[in-house]
Amino acid sequence: MTYCVAMRLDAGLVFLSDSRTNAGVDHINTFRKMTVWERPGERMLVLMTSGNLSISQSVVNVLNEHLAATDKPNLYNAPNLFEAARLVGDALREVHQRDAAALKEFGVDFAAAFILGGHIHGEEPRLFQIYAAGNFIEATHDTPYFQIGESKYGKPIIDRVVKKATSLEEASKCALISMDSTIRSNLSVGLPLDLLVYERGDFKVTHQIKIGADDPYFNQIRTQWGERLRQVFAELPDPAWD
Amino acid sequence: MTYCVAMRLDAGLVFLSDSRTNAGVDHINTFRKMTVWERPGERMLVLMTSGNLSISQSVVNVLNEHLAATDKPNLYNAPNLFEAARLVGDALREVHQRDAAALKEFGVDFAAAFILGGHIHGEEPRLFQIYAAGNFIEATHDTPYFQIGESKYGKPIIDRVVKKATSLEEASKCALISMDSTIRSNLSVGLPLDLLVYERGDFKVTHQIKIGADDPYFNQIRTQWGERLRQVFAELPDPAWD
Repeated sequence: MTYCVAMRLDAGLVFLSDSRTNAGVDHINTFRKMTVWERPGERMLVLMTSGNLSISQSVVNVLNEHLAATDKPNLYNAPNLFEAARLVGDALREVHQRDAAALKEFGVDFAAAFILGGHIHGEEPRLFQIYAAGNFIEATHDTPYFQIGESKYGKPIIDRVVKKATSLEEASKCALISMDSTIRSNLSVGLPLDLLVYERGDFKVTHQIKIGADDPYFNQIRTQWGERLRQVFAELPDPAWD
Repeated sequence: MTYCVAMRLDAGLVFLSDSRTNAGVDHINTFRKMTVWERPGERMLVLMTSGNLSISQSVVNVLNEHLAATDKPNLYNAPNLFEAARLVGDALREVHQRDAAALKEFGVDFAAAFILGGHIHGEEPRLFQIYAAGNFIEATHDTPYFQIGESKYGKPIIDRVVKKATSLEEASKCALISMDSTIRSNLSVGLPLDLLVYERGDFKVTHQIKIGADDPYFNQIRTQWGERLRQVFAELPDPAWD
């Protein structure tokens, strides 16, 4: 399983992914689920992937192969994020055409869900969620975030806290708390985490941090959050039965 | 969809269920998902149901029909909760035998998940989760609660707060907060709620409350919880990037 979350805020973009993959509980590995394409000063794109790892990796490879052919549309020359999302969708369909039937024969679903976000000069930062069929939706003012993978445990805190006006620091903090709730409830989501923060207008990665089990900040907020949550809970009035 | 949660604590049992059923978003109704069998002074049993409503209702009807035949095993004469869970499993299998093939022809899964808890004189209070196949598991000291239906949104707070030593008041409060998180995230879980509290040794329902949209206590704790959560979140330190 996987948990990835991305937010599109007035101030920029926040991406957070875990790195655990599993093919059964006895086959657990660490793979990065975040890929970055960057042309400093001009564009910065982030793709986060969930689902079947062979599909995700194939899609990233197809996208990278296309970078070489500069006469064809690719992530370095796509004029905007919408066209970039289409390229990811096309790559997914290419992999589907090649692999889906063979996977099906072995009873394996063609499972994939991606988040693509970034900023290309000439437009605002944008965020897309791409489905296995290669179609996609875009985050709007009303719903400034997308989640893929094991999304439910960590959704309530985001719904309560994140608005489009939320700062990049607060949004990163919220993504980490959301990830903490998910890791506590689902064994198949695990450290290390990849956190990427993009400040609107930078046209390059503003901050990118790998968060392992010994990260002092993550450990501080997850401990403090748990303690304060229990304290706030204890302070709520008990029900009176009569 | 449905969300039901039950806890087995040193002090007794807590059951909470929502009441929304839906067959598509344009066919939403209110049905109680909690059924109680009581012989005051001797036994108190609670069944909570999720899944296909026709299956749940059929199972409850089968169980009730059997109550009349006092020479056969039923929920009023089962010697212990384990045998009562078996009776629920048997009723499920009876309904499965009658309906599963016909449902399948219409592409409808035989979906059902139940929680059975209670106290029968001569043993401790017990709590079981019963699957569609009629098999079941029992709550233990390590995992003192079960959830059925839309369980993920409301799980983190229970994991953080509920231990077997938790009081019935705290546990009820936690179940309600867990329900609040679920209702906020999933439209198909809705009010009114049924809260049933059983104090160990009572051998009858100790408290049973219907909680509607105008319930002052529920509204107070859900508002206060949301506010304090945002406050605690704001007080967590922001990440420093360097």
